[in-house]
Amino acid sequence: MSNRNFQRLLAAKWAEGKFLCIGLDPIHDKLPDFLKTGNISKELFEFNRDIIDATFDLVCAYKPNTAFYEAFGDAGILALQRTVDHINTVAPDVPVIIDAKRGDIGNTNQRYCEFVFDHLKGDAVTIHPYLGREAVQPFLDYSEKGIFVLCRTSNPGAGEFQDLRILKTETVPLYLQVADNVSRSWNENKNCGLVVGATYPQEIGSIRAVAPEVPFLIPGIGTQGGDVEAAVKNGRNSDGTGFIINSSSGIIFASSGPDFAEAARKKAYGLNHEIRAVN
Amino acid sequence: MSNRNFQRLLAAKWAEGKFLCIGLDPIHDKLPDFLKTGNISKELFEFNRDIIDATFDLVCAYKPNTAFYEAFGDAGILALQRTVDHINTVAPDVPVIIDAKRGDIGNTNQRYCEFVFDHLKGDAVTIHPYLGREAVQPFLDYSEKGIFVLCRTSNPGAGEFQDLRILKTETVPLYLQVADNVSRSWNENKNCGLVVGATYPQEIGSIRAVAPEVPFLIPGIGTQGGDVEAAVKNGRNSDGTGFIINSSSGIIFASSGPDFAEAARKKAYGLNHEIRAVN
Repeated sequence: MSNRNFQRLLAAKWAEGKFLCIGLDPIHDKLPDFLKTGNISKELFEFNRDIIDATFDLVCAYKPNTAFYEAFGDAGILALQRTVDHINTVAPDVPVIIDAKRGDIGNTNQRYCEFVFDHLKGDAVTIHPYLGREAVQPFLDYSEKGIFVLCRTSNPGAGEFQDLRILKTETVPLYLQVADNVSRSWNENKNCGLVVGATYPQEIGSIRAVAPEVPFLIPGIGTQGGDVEAAVKNGRNSDGTGFIINSSSGIIFASSGPDFAEAARKKAYGLNHEIRAVN
Repeated sequence: MSNRNFQRLLAAKWAEGKFLCIGLDPIHDKLPDFLKTGNISKELFEFNRDIIDATFDLVCAYKPNTAFYEAFGDAGILALQRTVDHINTVAPDVPVIIDAKRGDIGNTNQRYCEFVFDHLKGDAVTIHPYLGREAVQPFLDYSEKGIFVLCRTSNPGAGEFQDLRILKTETVPLYLQVADNVSRSWNENKNCGLVVGATYPQEIGSIRAVAPEVPFLIPGIGTQGGDVEAAVKNGRNSDGTGFIINSSSGIIFASSGPDFAEAARKKAYGLNHEIRAVN
């Protein structure tokens, strides 16, 4: 495990033509009935396990969002641990992005690092930029991990602060300033990425112009309405790679019956095709 | 529990002249040796329990930071649950602020609400503003809880983005724009607060001018070097209340011996005095 490097794992998947990431966000109410045995930890894990077993050859990464597990306290965190362990066991070549959107002062961030990197053994994490580089340096110091900084988020209200114009020689919106700082300063260990919502394809293009080499984690296709083609065209780098298209509900809840894992595989397969078909 | 309201609990403590909040951040390496029995969950909980038992009559709130518990996975989350339960049992009049600094898109934030409010039964939470009001609305909808929005954080690098000037008719730094939006728009349910670091007393004053009625959660005295008098003078509202002074390590690690709880009480007592002594 000591040679495990997120950027290398990701590049290997891109070289195989894989850009799809499955968001393992098990909304408990939406789990297939037959899985609901009354043991929440078991239910969440078995749902994920079956999805993983049916899809790991199709994806460049998995992305569990911690919120869906925290909602069930320690039982949920246990299910999250088991999920990451399972991916590391059956698909050690597929990196795991812990979507935790953490961000505190420096000393506290060191504890978050212990949670996502040491305890869960994740390969990458999502973080908030608001407290500045000095606070997030503990994350940046993990040179073998991936650190995805929120930049232009996918939600309808993203512009409230992100679009505020920053006074410089010419005005720049805040989200572009975040991209600029991450690309030119935070990325010393070449381990940073940016989170950019598929729901804002023009902004994705502007961010790519400012940060030509940083990988993009792109949520927001599917339920949130983002377009795959626009996301890929605006998000890819000059090599045609450098992006991860995330889909969660659209894949894992494609079916609520006993065939849910097979249905997830079909959906993932189709999305892969759609991504590769972009000129 | 259904009539439990954070603002009312806090106001009652302010009326008793209590403004000190103890940060329950149990750095495992710093726990007294005699507590280290090999069961991490038990160690973290028993440390907290003894601190709480020795101090609950002195404080206006407790503030556990989730990072210190997450670092130990499900065992840590269990200790956090037991800690909040203990406060609700021995000191039901003392509100609990879950310092989680969460912030995701809307649907996901609903899960975070389930974690901090339903599962942990916390009375308040800290959140990131970056995704905008639309995303954090699930938090704001909990009208009986307290929602503390990060504004001017206490760390040395806080200014990297927070000080960026926003172009308006006159320029305004981003952190003041956050305060303005929270005070005039997000606070419809009168349940919002702002996190403002004691390490930036002038900024605290500017924020108070923009947000006269919103409670301030003020970390950063003690280890981080903030001054109590400056924080109180700049942070209090026109009634002389409206602020919470947080201290963690300075209190809970005042001693590493078997007298750690008594030492914590002494420190808390002294800080209370220092706060009340401000003219």
